[in-house]
Amino acid sequence: NKVEFFIDMLARGISKIAAGFYPYDVIVRMSDFKTNEYANLIGGYLYEPQEHNPMIGWRGASRYYDESYKPAFGLECIALKKARNDMGLTNIKPMIPFCRTPEEGRKVIEVMNEYGLKQGENNLEVYVMCEIPSNVIVADQFSDIFDGFSIGSNDLTQLTLGLDRDSDLVAHIFDERNDAVKRLVSQVISVAHSHHPRRKVGICGQAPSDFPEFAEFLVECGIDSISLNPDTVIKTRLKIAETERRLGR
Amino acid sequence: NKVEFFIDMLARGISKIAAGFYPYDVIVRMSDFKTNEYANLIGGYLYEPQEHNPMIGWRGASRYYDESYKPAFGLECIALKKARNDMGLTNIKPMIPFCRTPEEGRKVIEVMNEYGLKQGENNLEVYVMCEIPSNVIVADQFSDIFDGFSIGSNDLTQLTLGLDRDSDLVAHIFDERNDAVKRLVSQVISVAHSHHPRRKVGICGQAPSDFPEFAEFLVECGIDSISLNPDTVIKTRLKIAETERRLGR
Repeated sequence: NKVEFFIDMLARGISKIAAGFYPYDVIVRMSDFKTNEYANLIGGYLYEPQEHNPMIGWRGASRYYDESYKPAFGLECIALKKARNDMGLTNIKPMIPFCRTPEEGRKVIEVMNEYGLKQGENNLEVYVMCEIPSNVIVADQFSDIFDGFSIGSNDLTQLTLGLDRDSDLVAHIFDERNDAVKRLVSQVISVAHSHHPRRKVGICGQAPSDFPEFAEFLVECGIDSISLNPDTVIKTRLKIAETERRLGR
Repeated sequence: NKVEFFIDMLARGISKIAAGFYPYDVIVRMSDFKTNEYANLIGGYLYEPQEHNPMIGWRGASRYYDESYKPAFGLECIALKKARNDMGLTNIKPMIPFCRTPEEGRKVIEVMNEYGLKQGENNLEVYVMCEIPSNVIVADQFSDIFDGFSIGSNDLTQLTLGLDRDSDLVAHIFDERNDAVKRLVSQVISVAHSHHPRRKVGICGQAPSDFPEFAEFLVECGIDSISLNPDTVIKTRLKIAETERRLGR
């Protein structure tokens, strides 16, 4: 049974990591391939439409509630439910990538519900990725729907600057330390924290691993968590400790 | 002489419109094709690189200062200079599209200078399009460089929502009346107006033509000018007059 095989493999893969960190939060980003990426998988081109700009095309949330993709997203939901409810790994929090509007957010939460992954049930929190300018600009509205944010600094930088960093012709302009990006990062943290109830904000992009001064900036903004590349964990934790001492936290 | 022919044709085309409106401002958007659009012109594919996401690729300002495109942009500058200085149409104001960062803005102004189109000389004002989220978020910095803004509501909506409106799969989410877009529009107007010196803000997108309530919203925000499709001019001007009466302006 292929469906059961998929669900089982996914649930086991996720549970390995979730168990290792239990009872601490483990945030799981739901699938977010682009049409050109799916098309490159074996047989993928048989199913995927072609888009001129896949980076800003049919990806993330917009797939999950689309009738032609929903059953595939459903399998992910069932796998997460299995890991949480059957294996007891309730520290797992799904995160929804590329969610353009609060309306899309509500639709996705509804689809998750249909597949038995119910926000609030068994302490289930659902996070949203913060990687589209709209996620920051109407962060108050996203805070009404989601339990927390995880900043995707790569995509957020790309869209804030209208920039495909995979294009050699413009990649030289890509820099997460750009003022516009930093203002958005600071804004989403402040809006999420002043929301009732307070929403947590983490970051899962590359920036704090690449630039210690960016990690420092995030701590100054009051970010709740930072994910790092393995090879930068120690160096950056020391930097963060130093910054927190300086800030008297 | 092909170069002279190009310059002459462009200067004449622009001057026809600029003369018709003299002494009122005529804002001229500099060229902003995307790599796939240039490639579709006769012989274009011989010169254009291929990009995966041309919508957020090598376009607008990033071309103008690039050594491989600069001479082409130079021809546009010379044509505008001719229309302004030789024909006396000093009501022409060039507008720079797709300018991602203040640094790009400075580079483009420098290139214009090289080709004799000098900001400040003969009352030359240079506008920037406001169509990338960064244009709004660091509008204070863009105001230091440019003399005014012209909102491009189509692209601004696309990037604020991370959305290619040419893709049927996600076009249903495209809507300039989205809260995130409206907040950015309102923000850029307020920042530009409070800048010293005050910067004007216009709009050259489709939204106020399509939606009278959007035109009303722009007037409430205090926008300085609105461009409209010919078939909506009368209807929308009446709506604007009504709104201004209501606001006591």
